[in-house]
Formats: sequence, structure tokens, C-alpha cells
Amino acid sequence: MGLVVQKYGGTSVATPERISRVAERVVQSRKEGNDVLVVVSAMGDTTDELIALARAVNPNPPARELDMLLTAGERISMALCAMAIEARGVQAVSFTGSQAGILTDAAHGAAKIREIRGDRVRQALAEGKVVIVAGFQGVDPQSKEVTTLGRGGSDATAVALAAAFGAEVCEIYTDVDGVYTADPRLVSDARKLDEISFEEMLELSASGAGVLMSRSVEVGRRYGIPIHVRSSFNDHPGTWVKESTMEQAIISGIAHDVSEAKLTIRGVPDRPGVAAALFEPMAAEGVNVDMIVQNVSTDGTTDISLTVPKASLETARRIAQEVASRVGARGVEVDAAIGKVSLVGAGMKSHPGVAARVFRTLADAGINIEMISTSTIRISCVVREEDVTAAVKALHAAFEPPLVEEEVGA
Amino acid sequence: MGLVVQKYGGTSVATPERISRVAERVVQSRKEGNDVLVVVSAMGDTTDELIALARAVNPNPPARELDMLLTAGERISMALCAMAIEARGVQAVSFTGSQAGILTDAAHGAAKIREIRGDRVRQALAEGKVVIVAGFQGVDPQSKEVTTLGRGGSDATAVALAAAFGAEVCEIYTDVDGVYTADPRLVSDARKLDEISFEEMLELSASGAGVLMSRSVEVGRRYGIPIHVRSSFNDHPGTWVKESTMEQAIISGIAHDVSEAKLTIRGVPDRPGVAAALFEPMAAEGVNVDMIVQNVSTDGTTDISLTVPKASLETARRIAQEVASRVGARGVEVDAAIGKVSLVGAGMKSHPGVAARVFRTLADAGINIEMISTSTIRISCVVREEDVTAAVKALHAAFEPPLVEEEVGA
Repeated sequence: MGLVVQKYGGTSVATPERISRVAERVVQSRKEGNDVLVVVSAMGDTTDELIALARAVNPNPPARELDMLLTAGERISMALCAMAIEARGVQAVSFTGSQAGILTDAAHGAAKIREIRGDRVRQALAEGKVVIVAGFQGVDPQSKEVTTLGRGGSDATAVALAAAFGAEVCEIYTDVDGVYTADPRLVSDARKLDEISFEEMLELSASGAGVLMSRSVEVGRRYGIPIHVRSSFNDHPGTWVKESTMEQAIISGIAHDVSEAKLTIRGVPDRPGVAAALFEPMAAEGVNVDMIVQNVSTDGTTDISLTVPKASLETARRIAQEVASRVGARGVEVDAAIGKVSLVGAGMKSHPGVAARVFRTLADAGINIEMISTSTIRISCVVREEDVTAAVKALHAAFEPPLVEEEVGA
Repeated sequence: MGLVVQKYGGTSVATPERISRVAERVVQSRKEGNDVLVVVSAMGDTTDELIALARAVNPNPPARELDMLLTAGERISMALCAMAIEARGVQAVSFTGSQAGILTDAAHGAAKIREIRGDRVRQALAEGKVVIVAGFQGVDPQSKEVTTLGRGGSDATAVALAAAFGAEVCEIYTDVDGVYTADPRLVSDARKLDEISFEEMLELSASGAGVLMSRSVEVGRRYGIPIHVRSSFNDHPGTWVKESTMEQAIISGIAHDVSEAKLTIRGVPDRPGVAAALFEPMAAEGVNVDMIVQNVSTDGTTDISLTVPKASLETARRIAQEVASRVGARGVEVDAAIGKVSLVGAGMKSHPGVAARVFRTLADAGINIEMISTSTIRISCVVREEDVTAAVKALHAAFEPPLVEEEVGA
């Protein structure tokens, strides 16, 4: 029988009652003959509450101790989960990231998984036990220090374990029914997707769709592990993220993101090395630059605009001002009241008219576009923050995803 | 400079404000030139809350997972404590029981410390760091499983670490000012003791004085580590528990305990092997028998009475009934509405009149004595539970501890 990895997020394990429901589902899968490996996040808002405690004793808590603190969260949920499964007559054992052999680099708070040893996991599975592993955490084998993986870390743990142990599927249980064509809170007729390709999901995740983080989709793609995103509150099939989809939609979905701010450097002398002078120090200070737009120059100068997470705006502004005065640019402007709207779809590649239709749709809705960035399967527009909802609605109505591309000759 | 071990209980670290106060105290000791090793319990009622969560998902949680769960409690408080110390400009690092090399046996929930390796602790202290260690927990080196030490475990951790690293003193910070001659909630003129011997403290702890558990006093006595029991809320000197005390009190204190129940087996045939038949299975099932009283026999039968923790009463009753029917005893009676009152004092050894005075004092107060048990430095009486307060008050008034024994020739 095959191995199934099931990952349950914080809302799915927020209370003892919900943990018992998770246990029911795990036991059912076990009784159907599967080996089951469960990955859990911390209960409900535990992680936020622990961070608040940390800030109450130290406004700038040392990263090593913060990881020590936060890893207590999954330790609690994993042990409770194991107990709830045992209460149903099925043997279960919980392991921390360290015990499960999840080896990471040394970057506290943002560690990357390097390797999974997993001898104890393998042995427990061989003994017929359900194994519960703490998401979001690992250990740096050099220093023996406990690390956390940062945002989306529990999903990454689950997909990486699925890859390491050759699981048939990695099921990501969450509080929504799957991946939608747009945020259902904004668009009432948004539809759940049955399938989506890894590439499209990557673009959606990177564009603000919160249901699945890019890093777990990347691991799934690299190792060919199908990811089934579904609700922990019902038995409906969710969305399969997999190698390729039969349904070649022009547009799979529309994502939006209001967590970024825009920064513009005016009058940058248009000569080689200026962009490098700007973006090298940004990278060195960990500023996660998303969109970068540079127009052709006029009068030997150009404007460079970029978007960064709002949390990094002050750092980015400082760096930009230093670089601007060094290279003789005119000045730096920042704007936090922006939003990004993105269309994603593999079918877009062969439909050159999509971009034009996006711009026309937004223009007809009276929405001004401030920045544009595209990939082969994505078009992103920066608009005023207050226009985001109208833009998502207008685009969803115009494209009605998933529009299935007609097969040639069909 | 010497090493000081400071142990802070749950009430001392119940909130971020209190953790900050603990940090102040630790930093002060460090700045006075001491190496400081801190042992912390879980914050406030965390352990009880975690146990309640466990029971909500499994009425009979597996011991291995319960230990996994409960060890999250000290993980949280130790990390917060390290952060609060770092916030004051002093380097600090926290270690779990496992990381600190606290090796135990395999008894989940009631593990005993076998050995302390402590390489990481030693190195961190050598680097000038304050080291915070999670109390109450360790690791079984054979199975690599995390264990907890059971009741009083954090005190035991602190004294054992003090012994392992040759500390000058183990300071136990708590929510009272020290060890009292009787429970101040019952006796308004109870006095704080400045000093008490290990032996007397052992008897007081075993008789129900909750301020310090017997197991930590035993470790202190074995390795000669002075224990200073004091308040974390003020700077008053507390009570020193140490090798011998100058002050040879007849009575050091009066302890009481209402956590036990009484069990009596009537009409036990008075022949060799009966007591063994009763107490061997009790020990095998982990029933912690305290007092045992057997009268001289009449008509070839005798009554055996014993006290056990209320939590073990049902197990003890079942065993007693099995043994009673096997050996042909008349029957088994249980009584949970009892209390035990104990006088403790090293000076008692040379004062044969103390026991008589105890019995006279209780008789004058109209209190019936149901069982009596003595050691060389303790007299314990079982009375009705509702008579406990009156008994403690009467004895405290009669003996006014500490009554200092007159030195011969002084």
C-alpha cells in the first residue's frame, strides 16, 4: 500500500474538537490501507501569540531563541494529534523536525531544508504506526541548533517529506475547498479549480494567492509529487496541483496582493552598473524585491520602479536614497497605497491578445495601471490599493476562468 | 567566581512582566561576578492547561506523547527568559533537558535523573553566557525519547545541575518567603525559618510541606549543595537548607497533608508473608504507600491500615480486596476524608516527652487520632480532614517552633 502525506494547517487543529476530527480522517485513511504521515502546524494563533510574548520581553528577540520558542507550537499540536489517533485504537507517534531528521541550513527563522534523514520516521512507518511530524521546523546538523523554516514552512515540510519517502500524494488540508479562480471574498462567482499545473500554481502563489506557498509548489514540481489542496472541514475533492493538466485553460486564476509597496527612483543616469548598484545592497540586506520596471531613457536618464514587501519599505528606501545620491539620480519616491492584480494561465502563451484585453478591461472599469510586469504565463498590474477589488471583479468577469482553449482540430 | 544555580517556579515566570523581573535578578547576579545557571518551570498554569488539552483528545493519553506535550511548557518559558536577559545586554542561551544532557531512565511522567553530561552547558558557561535550562525534563539515552520527571521535577533539575557543576548554592525562587514553621494560611503567627537541616526538610517535605519536594532535598543532601528557598518577589533572605544547623530546635515545623486517603484491611490472619502479599503488588502498580500501621493481633488476626495518595485509592482498594480474599481477611474499608498532621524537628530525638505532648494537645482540642507514625525526628497523626486546621493551630501554639534546645552546660 502507498504512503499518503497529510498536512493540517493551524485552523484545522485549532481546538481539541478539530484535532479529533483530524484524527478521524487520518484513521480512515490508515484503515483504507495507506501508510499515513501527518504534518501539523501550531494550533490556531499559537505562533502569533508566542511572537507577542517574545516581543513583550524583548522588542528584538534573538533569532536562535525565537526559533526555540516557536517550535513549542507544533510540539503541542503534534503530541495532541498523536494522542487523538491513539484514542481511536491506531498506533501513532509524533516527532519534532529534529527527531524526524529534517536537516536545514543555519538561517534561524528562514531556514531551508537541505536533506531529510528520517530513520525514526521510516522505522515507525514500518511498524505500522501513523507518524506525526512537526511542520515548520528542523535542525542545523552543524550547530545542533533548532531552526524554523519561515512562512509556508509547514507546507514545505509536508511536500519535502512526501518527496523523501516517495509518497503517492501530499494532501494539504486547509480552511478552504481548494484553489479558486479568484479570492471568493472578492468575487462571489469565483470557481474552485479541479486541477492546476505546478507552473501556474507557482505564479498564482507568487502573485498573492495565500492557499499554498511557492516553496512547497517548487518542491512538488522538482520531485513530481502531486499536491491535493482540500478542506479539512468536508470530504469534497479539492484542487490537484500536478505535472500537467488535461484542461488547458487560458486563464487559471486571478490573484491579488496588497502587501507590497512601490518605490521609484527618478532621473537615474542611464549607464551600465546602476541597476547592480541598487539591487546588490537590497539583496544583501534581505529585501525581497518583486516587480522591477525600467523604462527606456529620455535625456540620458530613466526612472526605475520596484515593489517590495511593506515590511521592507524603510530599508529599501534608505538603500535607494544612498544609491540615488551616489549615482546622481534626482530622487526617491515611495507609495504604500498600491495593490497588484495578476492573471495566471498556461494557455496565455499561445494567446497574444490576452495582455491587450487585460488593459482594455481595466481601462473600461476606470482603473489606472501604474506598473506592468509579465511572464510567459502571467500578467501583473500595479493599481491603486482602493481599485484592487474592482480590478479583480472586472478581470474575473472578462475572462471567466477557466476558459478552456479549443484543441486544434477538435 | 563561583556558579550560582537559580530555579524559578511557574508563578515566578507566569507573565512577560514577571519574566522580565526574573531577568533583572539574573543579570544582577551575573554582574556581581557569578556564573549563573537558571532553571525554569513552565509559565503559570501552562502544564495544567496542556494536561487538560490532552484529556480533551484522549481520556488516557499515552505517556510518551504526554511527555512530548508537557515539555513544550518549559521550552516556552526558557526561551522567553533567555530573550529577556539578552534584552538587558547579557548573553544568554536556553537548552532543553535533552540539550543540557540531563539523562534519565525511561519512566515517562516519573523519570529519574541518572546522569548529567552537560557539554553544551559547560561550554556556554565558559563563554560567559547565562545558561537557562528547562526544568522537569530529560532524555532517555537508550530510546532517545524525551521524558518528564514528574512532580517537583524542576527543583530536582536545579539541585542536580548544581551538584553536577559544583555550584556554591542552589537558589529556589518561589512565591513564598521561605520555609515556615506551619502553613501561614492556617497559622497566622507561623514564622519563617532562617535555616533547617536536610533531614528535617526531608521530613517536612514528605509530610506535605509543598515548598520543596523531597527528591530535590535528597540530592542536595547527597552532594552537600546548600539550597536557599526564597521569594522571587522581594530580596529578603529566605530559608537555607543545609548540612547542619547551629540552631538545634526541638520542633522545626508542622506540616499537614490532605492529599491522602486511608485504607484498612480487617481481620488479616497473623502469619508470615501476609504483609509482603499486600505490598508487593502495590509497589508493582506504582501505588505510593505512605504510612503503614499494624496493631498486635487478637484472636490470631490483625488490622492493617495504610495511607495512599487519593489518586491511587481505587488501585489500592482493588489490590487490597484481591489480597484480602486470597488470605482470608475479613474485609477492606476506605476513607478519603482524612488529613495528616506532622511535627518535625531534629531536637525531638533527645526529648522523649514530645510525642506525649502532641497527643495531649490534640486530645485537649477534642481531636481524635486515627493513626500514628513516627521517625526519630517526626511524629505524624492521621485525623479527620475537617480537624486538620484546628490540629495544626493547636500544635503550633503548644510548641511555638522553633523552640531552641538549651545547650548542655550553657
